[in-house]
Amino acid sequence: MKSMILSVGTELLFGQITNTNAVYLSQQLNSLGLDVLHHHTVGDNPKRLAEVITHSLLDCDIIIATGGLGPTQDDLTKEVVCEVMGDTLSLDENVLDNIKALFRKINRDMTENNEKQAYLPSRATVFFNDVGSAPGFALTNKGKVVICMPGPPRELKPMFENHARPYLEKLTDSKIYYKMIKTFGAGESWLETELFDLIDSQTDPTIATYAKEGECALRVASKRSTEAEAISAVNAMTETIKDRIGELIYSFDDESIHEVACKILMEKNISISCAESCTGGVFSEYLTRVPGISSVFDRSFITYSNRSKIEELSVKPETIESFGAVSAEVALEMARGVKAKSGSRLCISVTGVAGPGGGTEEKPVGLSYIGLVFDDFEDVKEIRGRYSDRAANRYYSMLCMFDMIYKKVK
Amino acid sequence: MKSMILSVGTELLFGQITNTNAVYLSQQLNSLGLDVLHHHTVGDNPKRLAEVITHSLLDCDIIIATGGLGPTQDDLTKEVVCEVMGDTLSLDENVLDNIKALFRKINRDMTENNEKQAYLPSRATVFFNDVGSAPGFALTNKGKVVICMPGPPRELKPMFENHARPYLEKLTDSKIYYKMIKTFGAGESWLETELFDLIDSQTDPTIATYAKEGECALRVASKRSTEAEAISAVNAMTETIKDRIGELIYSFDDESIHEVACKILMEKNISISCAESCTGGVFSEYLTRVPGISSVFDRSFITYSNRSKIEELSVKPETIESFGAVSAEVALEMARGVKAKSGSRLCISVTGVAGPGGGTEEKPVGLSYIGLVFDDFEDVKEIRGRYSDRAANRYYSMLCMFDMIYKKVK
Repeated sequence: MKSMILSVGTELLFGQITNTNAVYLSQQLNSLGLDVLHHHTVGDNPKRLAEVITHSLLDCDIIIATGGLGPTQDDLTKEVVCEVMGDTLSLDENVLDNIKALFRKINRDMTENNEKQAYLPSRATVFFNDVGSAPGFALTNKGKVVICMPGPPRELKPMFENHARPYLEKLTDSKIYYKMIKTFGAGESWLETELFDLIDSQTDPTIATYAKEGECALRVASKRSTEAEAISAVNAMTETIKDRIGELIYSFDDESIHEVACKILMEKNISISCAESCTGGVFSEYLTRVPGISSVFDRSFITYSNRSKIEELSVKPETIESFGAVSAEVALEMARGVKAKSGSRLCISVTGVAGPGGGTEEKPVGLSYIGLVFDDFEDVKEIRGRYSDRAANRYYSMLCMFDMIYKKVK
Repeated sequence: MKSMILSVGTELLFGQITNTNAVYLSQQLNSLGLDVLHHHTVGDNPKRLAEVITHSLLDCDIIIATGGLGPTQDDLTKEVVCEVMGDTLSLDENVLDNIKALFRKINRDMTENNEKQAYLPSRATVFFNDVGSAPGFALTNKGKVVICMPGPPRELKPMFENHARPYLEKLTDSKIYYKMIKTFGAGESWLETELFDLIDSQTDPTIATYAKEGECALRVASKRSTEAEAISAVNAMTETIKDRIGELIYSFDDESIHEVACKILMEKNISISCAESCTGGVFSEYLTRVPGISSVFDRSFITYSNRSKIEELSVKPETIESFGAVSAEVALEMARGVKAKSGSRLCISVTGVAGPGGGTEEKPVGLSYIGLVFDDFEDVKEIRGRYSDRAANRYYSMLCMFDMIYKKVK
């Protein structure tokens, strides 16, 4: 079935917000086996909105619309969809009760405006909103479907998951199942070469590669008449891929490398501390994104100056003098220094040239060294990021640190 | 003049990438005084692309298209635009020389595919690409304009700035000038109330507010027949706004609070060190985003555990016991501890409850304390972030830290 994603809101056309709903819904619709032919954004303009809906229904079976369901004068999606789909609005008492309950819960007065939100197309299948006041709905006419949902992502996502997805699943006669296999340390073209015969001969399951700064994901997807068949096809292909490139795979569940590394540290209760120079806090920031990490994370030192490396981590001045602050020797002394201070079982350090300035022929922008001490084990790794961009180099060093931790403790 | 933004690429319809080009171009076109009526995304499908271009030109004067200019089989934007606009492709020798020079510069062999990129519509105004191999162009037909540019943002942005913007400026008979005034510490509705009469009676300059987690920006824009008139109108309005809410304004140039604070620290050569608990490195990460900050930034301590606060920063165990780790008293002792260790002139600390767990009635999620020591001056500030989200609370605390630094050292 052919679908399109319609976003309604003048703020999008002013460039005030990024359309992340289109990304989310595209992923969801594709995973349901629906073809997405268009993304279209229009402002809060009823005439133009009506034209776009009418025109889109010429080649699409399903329109997924977001935005314009709020309580203000501007919000006219519902009225326009009703008109185009040959229906009228009528008060839905259940929805009204729901909105009243929401306002009681958040302890705020309900305005008359909000009552407007309880009026819905008379033939609509209603999608209740569990986190906001605007309900969504699906409305059909002559074999075409228009689904309307609120614009704010925190309202849209649960509504899609709980209401729109089950509704759409009933419309399609096939089931989709997929796995996102995440790898680190190999380029997209290398992976494609290793898996060339599988990718080249693919019918079902399909294999797609997605590359992003050092990480490469493989999406293995199957579309069958039953879910069990789809799952079994994906699992069989996953096993084949695992046999070929297993050592590069860190997740079969679309997790990030920092999430996977932190999960293992917490599961195995391995205490961790850190010393950062070039990354300036990026590693610690990602580490502490993970709720519950305080059970194992003790402390970090961001030793930006040479003096702070010497004073806080007991790096020897002569090591810096002989090898430079960006060197394997300094990285290792930094990690040892963290160990001495914190007593954490796993201590990791990084020193490098993030750029844009500061690079030399011998030590170019993108070079960094990661030191790791785990109980009695010690290691240093040289990283050569190929980015000219400061942020990209810092990000890449951080990924390499989590990869090194993951490989050591898994 | 009416315009629309057309994005070409199947990867967008799969939800593999977010359409940030639409945001960037919307801001640019609006700043040029062009109305943006639509964003539309289609895949690499020549028939559908031709339909969208033809249909869009019914109500738009200008189409700004990105994507589909690459060297591969998929990339067909140029061919389709040519057909719709009644032109044919021909080899542009200057562009070919340019592409050859690019490949020499990056030391890679040019493939035959890339030669295809030197073929352009015969009537086109060519936009050279300074960072990639795909040139852009503008093509006119019967008073309508289609501009095509590459999809990757790092190629699109310089091409728009250097070629498309001057081209579009010539098409409009008016000049736009605007200032982005950035404020911190007041809500959008409070600002709108303070400036109500100015916003309510606006014709030119116009004033628009943009709110984002603690920060609120005011965009003051004027569209006049000469640039001098537009500048003078914006400057006069800026002065009026400054008289009303001057103490909240930290930038008249669309800078972020962390950039402004770091700039002053570097200008005045004030050394800085830091201690973070709940933010786990977010503050240091933002500090070290600024190139050149190593001239003043010495070190940070991320003291996540109580033990590390005591050992590294000499926070007294009885202070933690009496007031809790999240308290004004601990924040101040942390900042003093950084001062004692680093000797930096300005030392700042933060401790709080980032969430999602760990909140109590007395100390809810979002509460944090910032300690600041600057030479002999000491201060502690209580922050009550109203976010339920861990990332939002950490981000907001970071902004408050830079705001406190800015207000102290400016």
